[in-house]
Amino acid sequence: MRLLCFYIALLLLIFTPKTCQGGNILVFPTEGSHWINMDILLQALHSKGHNITILRSSKSWYINEKSSYYNTFTVQVERSLDEKAITEIISDLIEFEKGAVPLTSFLHVTVGFFSKLVDVHTLMGEFVSTVLGDQELMRTMKDSKFDLMLTDPCSGGRIILAKYLNLPLVYNVRWILAGEGHLAIAPSPVSYIPITGSHYTDKMTFFQRAKNMVLYLAVQTHHHLLVKQVYQRICDKYLGPDNDYNLLMLDADIWLMRVDFVFEFPRPTMPNVIYMGGFHCKPAKPLPEHLEEFVQSSGEHGFIIMSLGAFVSNLPAGITHEIAAAFAKLPQKVIWRHKGDRPVTLGNNTLLVDWMPQNDLLGHPKIKLFVAHGGTNGVQEAIYHGVPIVGLPLFSDQHDNLLRLKDRGAAKILTINVVHKDNNFLKAIQEVVNQPSYRMNMQRLSRLHRDQPMKPLDTALFWIEFVMRHKGAAHLRTESYRLPWYSYHSLDVILFLTGAVLLVLLTVFFLIRCLYTILCKHEVKHN
Amino acid sequence: MRLLCFYIALLLLIFTPKTCQGGNILVFPTEGSHWINMDILLQALHSKGHNITILRSSKSWYINEKSSYYNTFTVQVERSLDEKAITEIISDLIEFEKGAVPLTSFLHVTVGFFSKLVDVHTLMGEFVSTVLGDQELMRTMKDSKFDLMLTDPCSGGRIILAKYLNLPLVYNVRWILAGEGHLAIAPSPVSYIPITGSHYTDKMTFFQRAKNMVLYLAVQTHHHLLVKQVYQRICDKYLGPDNDYNLLMLDADIWLMRVDFVFEFPRPTMPNVIYMGGFHCKPAKPLPEHLEEFVQSSGEHGFIIMSLGAFVSNLPAGITHEIAAAFAKLPQKVIWRHKGDRPVTLGNNTLLVDWMPQNDLLGHPKIKLFVAHGGTNGVQEAIYHGVPIVGLPLFSDQHDNLLRLKDRGAAKILTINVVHKDNNFLKAIQEVVNQPSYRMNMQRLSRLHRDQPMKPLDTALFWIEFVMRHKGAAHLRTESYRLPWYSYHSLDVILFLTGAVLLVLLTVFFLIRCLYTILCKHEVKHN
Repeated sequence: MRLLCFYIALLLLIFTPKTCQGGNILVFPTEGSHWINMDILLQALHSKGHNITILRSSKSWYINEKSSYYNTFTVQVERSLDEKAITEIISDLIEFEKGAVPLTSFLHVTVGFFSKLVDVHTLMGEFVSTVLGDQELMRTMKDSKFDLMLTDPCSGGRIILAKYLNLPLVYNVRWILAGEGHLAIAPSPVSYIPITGSHYTDKMTFFQRAKNMVLYLAVQTHHHLLVKQVYQRICDKYLGPDNDYNLLMLDADIWLMRVDFVFEFPRPTMPNVIYMGGFHCKPAKPLPEHLEEFVQSSGEHGFIIMSLGAFVSNLPAGITHEIAAAFAKLPQKVIWRHKGDRPVTLGNNTLLVDWMPQNDLLGHPKIKLFVAHGGTNGVQEAIYHGVPIVGLPLFSDQHDNLLRLKDRGAAKILTINVVHKDNNFLKAIQEVVNQPSYRMNMQRLSRLHRDQPMKPLDTALFWIEFVMRHKGAAHLRTESYRLPWYSYHSLDVILFLTGAVLLVLLTVFFLIRCLYTILCKHEVKHN
Repeated sequence: MRLLCFYIALLLLIFTPKTCQGGNILVFPTEGSHWINMDILLQALHSKGHNITILRSSKSWYINEKSSYYNTFTVQVERSLDEKAITEIISDLIEFEKGAVPLTSFLHVTVGFFSKLVDVHTLMGEFVSTVLGDQELMRTMKDSKFDLMLTDPCSGGRIILAKYLNLPLVYNVRWILAGEGHLAIAPSPVSYIPITGSHYTDKMTFFQRAKNMVLYLAVQTHHHLLVKQVYQRICDKYLGPDNDYNLLMLDADIWLMRVDFVFEFPRPTMPNVIYMGGFHCKPAKPLPEHLEEFVQSSGEHGFIIMSLGAFVSNLPAGITHEIAAAFAKLPQKVIWRHKGDRPVTLGNNTLLVDWMPQNDLLGHPKIKLFVAHGGTNGVQEAIYHGVPIVGLPLFSDQHDNLLRLKDRGAAKILTINVVHKDNNFLKAIQEVVNQPSYRMNMQRLSRLHRDQPMKPLDTALFWIEFVMRHKGAAHLRTESYRLPWYSYHSLDVILFLTGAVLLVLLTVFFLIRCLYTILCKHEVKHN
């Protein structure tokens, strides 16, 4: 039987049709952790023989001009997003997360945050305008005869370039300008789809549903009144009138979503949405010698790792001290990615590091727990390796990401405003390490996540190549969003049919009344 | 490079995890063409080592009691659906298709059809009741320790048995009791989703949308008022109160849909809906000698096949003669599946057959055209082999199926009331055979259909085994349909928020008025 399988595999190998070799891909990436994601896709595409060209700004923080696996178009800019601006936005977002702020302060933070967000979009828009306005660059791009544009729509304006160059478009996406990606592409009843930032699950009480709706309306209003306008102006200038930016955004052929339904709550989706959650996860490689020695020294107690992601490597001193003191009381060893001053309460069992091979540590047999901020990349890696989490969400989608694990009994969340009180941190760690249910639940999620017909990265590559082979994927994309909203929701039809029914009823009623009057008169005459 | 691939394939072969061997599957199939579909799945499951037990009626027409690849539970029944009843319903449906009938006749046909449909459901319900009432059978079934129930929900009541036995459930589905399967499981805006029987595409005018809505409401009303009640009574008797039959129907873990988006218009879907359209299609085998000789004799002109499916093998004589006469005028050879009298107008180029190896003929290099009624199986085979169609839709979903090909320029439709007039049939065949666009469009669909990450049958098997491995697929299934309809659509929240906003506005208005009145009085006093 095994021999037969071997021969079949051999035959398949010989007769398998050639994949789409030598595609020519234009990539318009986003900075920060989004680039880390995109880079994995690009390396995989390069290894399959595709030619990759990246459009980057001269002030890019993460994306190098020279690389062994991509070429670049570098566009000179005078000003650009810098990490400082992002850090400011993040500290505003952390204010949000602290919660229980007085109303005036809440309004101050909200207005400040939304106005800074518009600044970010203005900068993004400027970059796209610079690109589109550079006639020589545009000519070179057209001459390059790209087969496809690959981009992350969390940054605005990219679709305008794809449309201008008339290229099929694939998104590597979790966020769009107006929130989570599905909100734009698939029907999203807010009665059971929690808006990011609501901190709700897919089962809400009446008042939670009401708050969820308010949040949805606030985000949509902000997008339509402020953010969209930034890009609509560029659209009008370079594509001419009658191109609504929001509709253009829905023109992508394939949406490669960086989630799956082991992580995300089940919800409606569309045929051109392909799930590649965890595409960056891979089996653990052996650890560097000093780390292996350190984790082996933990004996039967095992070890814990803590990382709060790329943007926030150090917390306020009070919290840091409390965390270090809690770690010191544990029988486990701890590896902590921490860049600030060494906390005075640090125990001998805790190793501070600038950087750690997170995936390899999460895949180590002795790991017991991951103390994480709840960024998507880390959460997906924890699911892949089946390691339970104590979450310290700081901003953005982090609380909502962790909530998806908490809801499945695989994580515990501590908000930033309670983490340093009443031994909360120590108690949370002890609970998750010592109660087997957390580990069992996370390992169940891991089994579900790994049990897919194809690896997520291979799925992503298949669909990128599919779009190149067929010059798009129009058959998977509904055009229904081009209907006016009242037609899409059949409000005009309902009004028309209700009117028609009322008209018939009224006619019948008047006919009966007339008949009755005539009959009565007739009777009176007879009498 | 090739050697490297070879070693990778070898490693994959050695380390590939074992599939779910030896599952124990209870199958509750449906008769007719639905059994032909199911049978293909069952043979594939058997060949993967699963144990299959079929629940069948003693009056089954298609499903044999003895088989080499399944066991049976045969339930003795006194009455059952017979082909005559189905033929009666079909002739009513053909009346529908003829269209342009006077209103009284239309009402007669409609009422007759709907009442016959309720009779069919009553019979189906009786069978399920007999099964559930047979205590010995129920005990045997419980003792059999099945891992899964596989069924086709176009027949009612099966979910009650699955619930009673507490089994994970997989649907092999295109139809549910209230129309096309997606209508129950996924959001389905009727503004662009044509209801089966409407004969519309996903792009409708205002009045088409209105008619589509009326059709939708009619089908739903019929289902809720009449059909559902038949099964709700069985539900109440065997599962106790508080089990709404419509909600139970949505409890299936996986919906294996017998369509894909090369055939179906793009529309919203759900994570537990898996598309296996064309899972029964396979490469052509060589033809029997006499057929190969016949088709080779067609020379460069090639040949045409005609079949109107399992239920309608012969048409009214007038139409048959017209078709035979049209065929006689063609330079192509014709193979016609026809059971009635030999038409006097039959030409030498036409071969009448009782049965034909349809898939092998469609895959023959000399085929030019398929004259088909538009059943899903045949349409999918035509797509798979890239053969354009002249469609003669007779009833049910056939017109709508063909419309999906016509909309893509791969088929021409002739309705039963015009086929025999003005040489329509001959002209249609000549158009589709001689205009290259039909063949090119169908071959484009074929390329898209065949370009999938996995073969549809393998996808179906993967998900059936997935449900057995994980004892369900709850993470892919939303429970949102358990919300009351007004909550699902957020109507309660909208009412509440509108009320709250009005209250605030009114309060502000009255406060201003009070203030104004007080100020005015104050001023008057001062004066």
